[in-house]
Amino acid sequence: MKSCVPPGFRFHPTDEELVGYYLRKKVASQKIDLDVIRDVDLYRIEPWDLQEHCKIGYEEQSDWYFFSYKDRKYPTGTRTNRATLTGFWKATGRDKAVRDSEQGGGLIGMRKTLVFYTGRAPSGRKTDWIMHEYRLETDENAAPQASRP
Amino acid sequence: MKSCVPPGFRFHPTDEELVGYYLRKKVASQKIDLDVIRDVDLYRIEPWDLQEHCKIGYEEQSDWYFFSYKDRKYPTGTRTNRATLTGFWKATGRDKAVRDSEQGGGLIGMRKTLVFYTGRAPSGRKTDWIMHEYRLETDENAAPQASRP
Repeated sequence: MKSCVPPGFRFHPTDEELVGYYLRKKVASQKIDLDVIRDVDLYRIEPWDLQEHCKIGYEEQSDWYFFSYKDRKYPTGTRTNRATLTGFWKATGRDKAVRDSEQGGGLIGMRKTLVFYTGRAPSGRKTDWIMHEYRLETDENAAPQASRP
Repeated sequence: MKSCVPPGFRFHPTDEELVGYYLRKKVASQKIDLDVIRDVDLYRIEPWDLQEHCKIGYEEQSDWYFFSYKDRKYPTGTRTNRATLTGFWKATGRDKAVRDSEQGGGLIGMRKTLVFYTGRAPSGRKTDWIMHEYRLETDENAAPQASRP
């Protein structure tokens, strides 16, 4: 796509902007100012093919942004299927909280980091492809955490 | 100023965009899409006061962009006066050519690098403030360079 912002502007969103503006609007089916984040079916596309789908303007990019539905491994289960034809995305590290800096730092989402492996789990070969998966989450509707006062 | 681009976009112009779009339009008194580069009188403002004048939106910035007239040291001369109240800008290194990547790499401008010194030339104390000064220049109207075939 050709972006419609004046020359010199680059899309370098913060986690807060991705969650608090783009993802929130997308989930609510609200209009987004500029269609800069593409829809993708992540389970039918290999990481190296994302570049072509998610180009912004004519810039060289090292990050690509997209929306994708989460696929369930089994229709009745909650486990997530993150396999593509040639490999799979595997979570790594701990999820990171995304906070709203303007609203007193309230929790608005979480960021999960995943690495792409070629082959099939539990084996497979690690690659250099990294994905950050953002989800909405607010203090009110967050899953209750086991804690003692 | 509050910039009017969608969330997630940052002003990170290339030399080519600064010269080929912003400076070229400014010199020709043409309308610029978004008033993102402010007019400043560089000889009446100290480097540390530029930040306040040249803010873009609410972002933390480490670079500030502005237009300024070149001041002559003497009305009839060609030497440039780059002194402020507390110090002066001094050129360093060699000027860098700015080329038009779409038009076969033709010369469109030059970039001079200057460092701010407090005090008065020829003494003065070097600071960490760096300025890049861009000027229009085309292959056709460039000053002839001494060269032998």
